[in-house]
Amino acid sequence: MDLRFIGEPHHDGSALYVSEQEPALGSRVTLWLRAPLAAGITGVHVRTVHDGEPRYAEAAPDPSRRQAGGYGGTDVWWRAEITAVNPVTPYRFLLATRGGQAWLTAAGLVAHDVTDAGDFRLVCHRPPPSWMSDAIVYQIFPDRFDRSRPMRDLPDWALPRDWDRDPVIPSGPGTSGQFYGGDLDGVVQRLDHIQSLGADTVYLTPIFPARSNHRYDAATFEHVDPLLGGDEALHRLSGALHARGMRLLGDITTNHCGDTHEWFTAAVSDVNAVEREMFYFDRDSGDYESWWGVKTLPKLNWGSELVRARMRAVLKKWLGPLDGWRVDVANMTGRHAAADHNHEVAAMLRAELGPEAAFIAEHNHDASCDLDRDGWHGTMNYGGFTRPVWTWLRGPELDLDHFLGVPGGVPSRDGTAALATFRSFASHMSWRSLVHSWQLLDSHDSPRIRTVTGSRERHLLALGLQATLPGTPMVFAGSEFGLTGVNGEHSRTPMPWNRPADQDLATLAAYRELLGLRRAEPALRHGGLRWLHADADCLVFARETYEESILVCVRRAPGAPLRLGVHARGLYNAEDGDVLPGDGPSVRLWRLTR
Amino acid sequence: MDLRFIGEPHHDGSALYVSEQEPALGSRVTLWLRAPLAAGITGVHVRTVHDGEPRYAEAAPDPSRRQAGGYGGTDVWWRAEITAVNPVTPYRFLLATRGGQAWLTAAGLVAHDVTDAGDFRLVCHRPPPSWMSDAIVYQIFPDRFDRSRPMRDLPDWALPRDWDRDPVIPSGPGTSGQFYGGDLDGVVQRLDHIQSLGADTVYLTPIFPARSNHRYDAATFEHVDPLLGGDEALHRLSGALHARGMRLLGDITTNHCGDTHEWFTAAVSDVNAVEREMFYFDRDSGDYESWWGVKTLPKLNWGSELVRARMRAVLKKWLGPLDGWRVDVANMTGRHAAADHNHEVAAMLRAELGPEAAFIAEHNHDASCDLDRDGWHGTMNYGGFTRPVWTWLRGPELDLDHFLGVPGGVPSRDGTAALATFRSFASHMSWRSLVHSWQLLDSHDSPRIRTVTGSRERHLLALGLQATLPGTPMVFAGSEFGLTGVNGEHSRTPMPWNRPADQDLATLAAYRELLGLRRAEPALRHGGLRWLHADADCLVFARETYEESILVCVRRAPGAPLRLGVHARGLYNAEDGDVLPGDGPSVRLWRLTR
Repeated sequence: MDLRFIGEPHHDGSALYVSEQEPALGSRVTLWLRAPLAAGITGVHVRTVHDGEPRYAEAAPDPSRRQAGGYGGTDVWWRAEITAVNPVTPYRFLLATRGGQAWLTAAGLVAHDVTDAGDFRLVCHRPPPSWMSDAIVYQIFPDRFDRSRPMRDLPDWALPRDWDRDPVIPSGPGTSGQFYGGDLDGVVQRLDHIQSLGADTVYLTPIFPARSNHRYDAATFEHVDPLLGGDEALHRLSGALHARGMRLLGDITTNHCGDTHEWFTAAVSDVNAVEREMFYFDRDSGDYESWWGVKTLPKLNWGSELVRARMRAVLKKWLGPLDGWRVDVANMTGRHAAADHNHEVAAMLRAELGPEAAFIAEHNHDASCDLDRDGWHGTMNYGGFTRPVWTWLRGPELDLDHFLGVPGGVPSRDGTAALATFRSFASHMSWRSLVHSWQLLDSHDSPRIRTVTGSRERHLLALGLQATLPGTPMVFAGSEFGLTGVNGEHSRTPMPWNRPADQDLATLAAYRELLGLRRAEPALRHGGLRWLHADADCLVFARETYEESILVCVRRAPGAPLRLGVHARGLYNAEDGDVLPGDGPSVRLWRLTR
Repeated sequence: MDLRFIGEPHHDGSALYVSEQEPALGSRVTLWLRAPLAAGITGVHVRTVHDGEPRYAEAAPDPSRRQAGGYGGTDVWWRAEITAVNPVTPYRFLLATRGGQAWLTAAGLVAHDVTDAGDFRLVCHRPPPSWMSDAIVYQIFPDRFDRSRPMRDLPDWALPRDWDRDPVIPSGPGTSGQFYGGDLDGVVQRLDHIQSLGADTVYLTPIFPARSNHRYDAATFEHVDPLLGGDEALHRLSGALHARGMRLLGDITTNHCGDTHEWFTAAVSDVNAVEREMFYFDRDSGDYESWWGVKTLPKLNWGSELVRARMRAVLKKWLGPLDGWRVDVANMTGRHAAADHNHEVAAMLRAELGPEAAFIAEHNHDASCDLDRDGWHGTMNYGGFTRPVWTWLRGPELDLDHFLGVPGGVPSRDGTAALATFRSFASHMSWRSLVHSWQLLDSHDSPRIRTVTGSRERHLLALGLQATLPGTPMVFAGSEFGLTGVNGEHSRTPMPWNRPADQDLATLAAYRELLGLRRAEPALRHGGLRWLHADADCLVFARETYEESILVCVRRAPGAPLRLGVHARGLYNAEDGDVLPGDGPSVRLWRLTR
């Protein structure tokens, strides 16, 4: 079998194909389209949408990209200049072929007309901080990571649990009260471990005082929970990370606060309080809106200037110790009935944070409409990464009653379905938003990848995709040891530092190796993404910069070897007879030279 | 061959599947999904996006829709209730089948995850006026329709031409100056003709004074061009139409005005004039932005309050004689570099116009991002209708150098490609926006459909689609006689009232018959759209209300008869052996009873 897509023309938003990754408004940008000779392309135009109207620029073959040392003789590189005329300039390629015409958009190659929804996008908004595009993020749920001292001074809501002996309560009474006593100095003492994985950015779920172990019901945004060590512990952790050249992100609930938050208690105790406008109170009943009807989580009203001023101050205040924020239920933030302040709020907060802070939106189904608007830098890409990986690599015995909230459990799908989903989501956001979005296999809100896949073998296939596809890997602490969990709460297992039996060291070694490879190889972080093949059991793609190409083949089962074929000759140091072996399950990478 | 899609589950936004076509914000709405038993659906959920977050409602079979007199025994109608929680509430169906899971969105049935871009949309914005959904629009280019008196008092720019003897200049010198002298009283004397086609709404391209025959370079918006008969003639035309229960639409350039417009001459003659802010003047050079760099068409700056106030007044002023507006280059309106006021301006103007006026946006490639935002009611659907029809029915000899602006001429594509394009565009707008958009075969800005198709036979196939698909048919005056034209200017042929040789009476009869059928059959105006089959040469679909079903089969060439098959039994008065005959080219309609 030949690689299915290797003869197709290709473009993506990476530096190999777009001259300027951070174009200024109005600047000229060079685009390249790479077309194997076998694709039979006889002419290329680029269509941009310019102040709402399509314009066409003719492309021409670029001889400089056919020279020795550049790229080989079986591809034509078409080159065109366009103007980044609007903050987001959509573009696509019109290909004339011997057989007719086709469009190449980020959604793929089509021989019929399609809307602009899947067009490539050139984005002129302020770029994310440059450090983000190299980041590997390590997520910590503070109550369960490590503790620096015995538990003491427990609040009334807390149910003390033994770190290594008491299993996590996955649902029902005690779920949010069970308290293991992890703290921020506990994180400080594990930085060697975190760094050994290749991670350079620690993301902490909420650290403000609250009445639950998850702390999404903040009682204040003004100081760090003394149970975690208080403000001083945050400064110690941040200082230790920064000393290693690492970074620290917080977790902020812009959608709601806790019902014991000082803003809410002021609002609820006096209908004339200035804070009253900060929430959605029903004028007659006095009832208020809350997250999914959970009354401990009153929803903030971003129509209120006071919410805007106070939240701006909160997000800004913590910069210094923090290098940015992950934003809880960003998708619901500012949205209520007829009001939708989401994009405006995101842009306002990002401006407040300045150019060096990360700003990532939680979004559990499809963030694409909220990205590329000068607000969120990216999303937690459950829709465009986690889900397709899960459906392809789920274990045969998996029995969950929903799929990240979708009824019916996790469906089993083949590799072509996974690719179709990768493409659907990637094509509805800019390359910039894709690479800055978090590529996660699991989180504190989901079953563990080990439970989903049901085996180390498949877990490591998933890791292989996480480490090699575009997007910022985010590892949920504990998955590197192969911990399990059937839902978010259940997955918040205390780390097995003192339970050797719970440490799968082969899995740990694979995390170090694969994430280390990502850290070592620029092409895995900054390269374009060219899909070369998909079938039921196999995904093949290349990550490419101008300097190098890395070919990745992930197989969930053995299959026929894949012939590189004649098209590969110019691309890689391959011969006609070369094949990608069919053994599996396997993750294989090749460095290709030209 | 069986009908390809007849076994697929179906939903669309029509009244057969959605209980409330004009839901109030917060109201409960019933949805139905129709699933042939053969589709093997074992459970259905509806996913809505509620303040940015997905929610699932379980559907159940609706026994009332299986009773005699309703629908037959081979379909299950699944029913669910959802809340129209936001101004636009996206929704989709999750189908459990014996083999797995699938999503049904407006983009079709898929067995993998996709973004929300193609979700169905429940829209709570103010509805368009009810008369619009029954309308058939007849477009008139006033200089070329008919004249009530000899030409006189010609302005300096006009080159007088003889109505029947001088051919239209298609490009180059004289194109915009050639003047045939049609006027509004000329339209009055042809209302019988217009009404005989089934049309009930006349749309006039601009009628304000200008320095061209097309008048898109308005010198004022305050009075009707005296060359057309002035304000009085407009009132006479409007009165005559309204007396017949017909309506009249104007054409407004919200993107620009003419360089002789009083606003622009004031602005250009004094840098301190209040009108200066209405345009984009370069502070240093004094140069100004214009439509596509055409300096006679200075672009309006909608960041200016003065533009807003004056344009609001203009659009409002003409209501009375006019029943609404078609908006020229609506896609560019309010868009310039970093500024994008388009949606805000459209919503503001629509509010100003009130609930009874039509408001249709010109958009030549993809309006979907600009619809469903409480602004434009619909678009001129070149992208989602004209283009796919052209590619399917273009004549073998057609030789145009571009395809409505796309380089390379009109590609020849088969019926499956046409369907894919219909679906792509229809799935990116609400049902409401689709049915209120104009479904046109040609216009004053395009080649004539007769030229594109190259024959009466194919022209009438195109007409068959225009008369039977959802969307508001818009006929460009003259196409009912089979006039030809290779580009917009060339298509502005003076009407052949006195040139019997230019009147193809068989074509005229077909317009009367097919548009008359649309006027007679509620299902063709208000029915849902269920695609039943597409192949290279054949498109089959049903238009259905609760009361009736009309089956439409359009063939561009003979082919194998299509078996209705077992699935048809419950739907129609069909037997297993019934077929749709394979002869063609043909347009056939059947009324189906249950």
